[in-house]
Amino acid sequence: MAKDFPTRSENYSQWYNDLVIKADLAEPSPVRGCMVIKPYGYAIWEKIQAALDKMFKDTGHSNAYFPLFIPKSFFSREASHVEGFAKECAVVTHYRLKAAPDGKGVIVDEDARLEEELIVRPTSETIIWDTYRNWIKSYRDLPILINQWANVVRWEMRTRLFLRTTEFLWQEGHTAHATKEEAIREAETMLNVYASFAENWMAIPVLKGTKSPAERFAGAIDTYAIEALMQDGKALQAGTSHFLGENFAKAFDVKFLSKENQLEYVWATSWGVSTRLMGALIMSHSDDNGLVLPPKLAPIQVVIVPVFKNPEQLNLISEKVLPLKKALEAKGISVKYDDRDTQKPGWKFAEYEFKGVPVRITIGPRDIEQGTVEIARRDTLEKETFQMTDIENKIVHLLYQIQANLYNKALDFRENNTFRVDSWDEFKRVLDTTGGFIAAHWDGTPETEEKIKEETKATIRVIPLNNPPEKGKCVYSGNPSEGRVIFARAY
Amino acid sequence: MAKDFPTRSENYSQWYNDLVIKADLAEPSPVRGCMVIKPYGYAIWEKIQAALDKMFKDTGHSNAYFPLFIPKSFFSREASHVEGFAKECAVVTHYRLKAAPDGKGVIVDEDARLEEELIVRPTSETIIWDTYRNWIKSYRDLPILINQWANVVRWEMRTRLFLRTTEFLWQEGHTAHATKEEAIREAETMLNVYASFAENWMAIPVLKGTKSPAERFAGAIDTYAIEALMQDGKALQAGTSHFLGENFAKAFDVKFLSKENQLEYVWATSWGVSTRLMGALIMSHSDDNGLVLPPKLAPIQVVIVPVFKNPEQLNLISEKVLPLKKALEAKGISVKYDDRDTQKPGWKFAEYEFKGVPVRITIGPRDIEQGTVEIARRDTLEKETFQMTDIENKIVHLLYQIQANLYNKALDFRENNTFRVDSWDEFKRVLDTTGGFIAAHWDGTPETEEKIKEETKATIRVIPLNNPPEKGKCVYSGNPSEGRVIFARAY
Repeated sequence: MAKDFPTRSENYSQWYNDLVIKADLAEPSPVRGCMVIKPYGYAIWEKIQAALDKMFKDTGHSNAYFPLFIPKSFFSREASHVEGFAKECAVVTHYRLKAAPDGKGVIVDEDARLEEELIVRPTSETIIWDTYRNWIKSYRDLPILINQWANVVRWEMRTRLFLRTTEFLWQEGHTAHATKEEAIREAETMLNVYASFAENWMAIPVLKGTKSPAERFAGAIDTYAIEALMQDGKALQAGTSHFLGENFAKAFDVKFLSKENQLEYVWATSWGVSTRLMGALIMSHSDDNGLVLPPKLAPIQVVIVPVFKNPEQLNLISEKVLPLKKALEAKGISVKYDDRDTQKPGWKFAEYEFKGVPVRITIGPRDIEQGTVEIARRDTLEKETFQMTDIENKIVHLLYQIQANLYNKALDFRENNTFRVDSWDEFKRVLDTTGGFIAAHWDGTPETEEKIKEETKATIRVIPLNNPPEKGKCVYSGNPSEGRVIFARAY
Repeated sequence: MAKDFPTRSENYSQWYNDLVIKADLAEPSPVRGCMVIKPYGYAIWEKIQAALDKMFKDTGHSNAYFPLFIPKSFFSREASHVEGFAKECAVVTHYRLKAAPDGKGVIVDEDARLEEELIVRPTSETIIWDTYRNWIKSYRDLPILINQWANVVRWEMRTRLFLRTTEFLWQEGHTAHATKEEAIREAETMLNVYASFAENWMAIPVLKGTKSPAERFAGAIDTYAIEALMQDGKALQAGTSHFLGENFAKAFDVKFLSKENQLEYVWATSWGVSTRLMGALIMSHSDDNGLVLPPKLAPIQVVIVPVFKNPEQLNLISEKVLPLKKALEAKGISVKYDDRDTQKPGWKFAEYEFKGVPVRITIGPRDIEQGTVEIARRDTLEKETFQMTDIENKIVHLLYQIQANLYNKALDFRENNTFRVDSWDEFKRVLDTTGGFIAAHWDGTPETEEKIKEETKATIRVIPLNNPPEKGKCVYSGNPSEGRVIFARAY
């Protein structure tokens, strides 16, 4: 593993891309815009999945699976949804190939054209609500609290590994409720689940809020989002939760008999996070030496590297290491003991540092004599020598410390890069220097929002939840404003 | 839940279909041939996934993810693979929709036609071996032991829920090896993993063997399979593991520098099981009262039904039940306490019986007085009253017993329905009466195999592993044979 990649300050975008590829997280595929998620990257995604899945189940949700394909006509049912989603989609038109007449390869069989084209799902509201129609008759059938882990496809023109790919993996929750209040509560609950996951597992502080109408999900009454700040001062939307009102129930004619014996439309939410979280994770913590992973999501939490000159020395070291490895594993810590003799310790140090392993233990002949080990932290790059006594508990504690330190570091960064801005010049200056979150007054009109976007590429990331009312003047138009919203340039 | 469905003897096929739908496992979707897997069915699939995933990891495999789409030309690379797979496929030809000129709905944008059509993966050998080419340079890069959990699409004309659907969920392992021997060993290891999973988790005894050339995977040198016998006497192929030789390495030009510094082609295996296992699970154990699930894969292992006339009685019961529930959960048992007052106990008994919950505990006011509970087993439908003392351990033990009983029952069934047949009349008679596995001599020619299939619809399910050599005469042609193979009609 050669460290032939730029620093963040040299070329942030290239730094990110090189990191993803060289740390074996993912790579581009021969299919334009699609990626291959490699085992090391996928192992992180599996940890993300496991933690979220448990949180979903703990809040009463079950998993299910709906078809990959959606009949084209379904997209036309919900007026704003068609605007947002029925555009850049993969369209299946045929269901058979045949041998080419020249005998070379295969061609599409024109006799096997579908009567109605099928769309590879970009999101599943339409097919799910078409299905819910048959499941919901009475208030007794509600709520329906379902999540799906799936792949989706949105034909993107410009793609970046994890951040924006044509195919991506995600989860999409789709819930059905008897009342508006319950549906709003659900959308807020899931926003809080996402925020809690981002902060407690990914060690990424997030802002919670609602989106402006222009940034809402196509078909939603209200979109809640969590927004994180990356090290280059750009925002990244890390998860969204939508209150869909009765829009999809009306589009797919889903009514229920209420307790009061009234036929009413069902209230809906949907919410999702995707492999984009991998991009947020990488960009939040990593440094110019490579990946930095929070312990809770690291596939390897502790790596043990023996330093030895001959098999006898290795044997002596292994006698100490194997019980330690076992003891750590008994505490639920994932440990790799890299006793290969084909690579030098220095090579291994660089490799695991680059791959973001939170804790490295080094142990050599002198350590054996003295009953010590050397422990290196990936987050601070500090090294320290400890007695072997009670080393397991030290390591458990250290992993907690690293998790907390990464969060605090990211929080400091965000606080140092969040600016209250009251003039248009200052607004532009911030964006063109440090970037970051800008808390500024907005007059509440889509016209102003659009002009700000045109002139600066900054968008309203969130209108913070529980936003304190504050009279002021719009940073762009000078018109009256009732409170600040958060602007940033975003991924 | 009304028991308005036929018995197995009345209409086996309808019994299966009704069971799947009425037990809330899955249902047809608006997209032809695709299914919706409902939460109860998906919860079983999740348990299957978790158990298999652990077995894959314990045998050294990692998960990864490859694209959903495969360029059409990839299918032409491996000659026999194209025959087998590049036929009934979903073909993506366009990547954009646009508003219809009449303003009604959306139409395919003809300007957005792909230069090369994309095929929705029916299996991923081609795209994975195209990727492996860049990963493998030297023997140090081998073996590659990767698995993928994914959805695949094969355009089926006649579909049945779980057993044969256009889209299905599966896992596909794809491994790369330096030597032929290692690859064969891998294919056999994974066959054994599948067999062990089928027997120990699904409680389904399976025959292990290789497929005849006519039944091999398109592109394989050898296909290993596990075959199970369903209650209607038809076989079901429950998993396959393929030794692919150098076929895909040659097709995608994947070579490595050996220890001896020679450039050699890489050896391959692939192996998979799918949501078809759900069909095998349902058909192996269920009865005319509904689903029967082995405890290890049951989403609810124990249901507790209180019998009460008023809230005071329910309170008294709950005081006993809640600590019991907690104690069982502490032992890793999933328990549902159904204390709803909207349904009568009798309705609940029928519901959980129908849904195959292995153990039901009933507790009423008299039980409270006497310190007892009634325990009903789903497999035998037996009921017995026990003292509450040490009830947790009794239930743990009972769950083991039920798991073992289901396996033994299925094994008895298979043994009673496996026939050594030496005449063609007997062969046809068995198929037309009981069905089952037929161990018969075969002359080893594809011609005979094909004729047997034409005349009886029976196929060679497996050539058993370690088949004892036995000279005989082919049951169809009378030509010499070296050993018996297993015939059956199959799903």
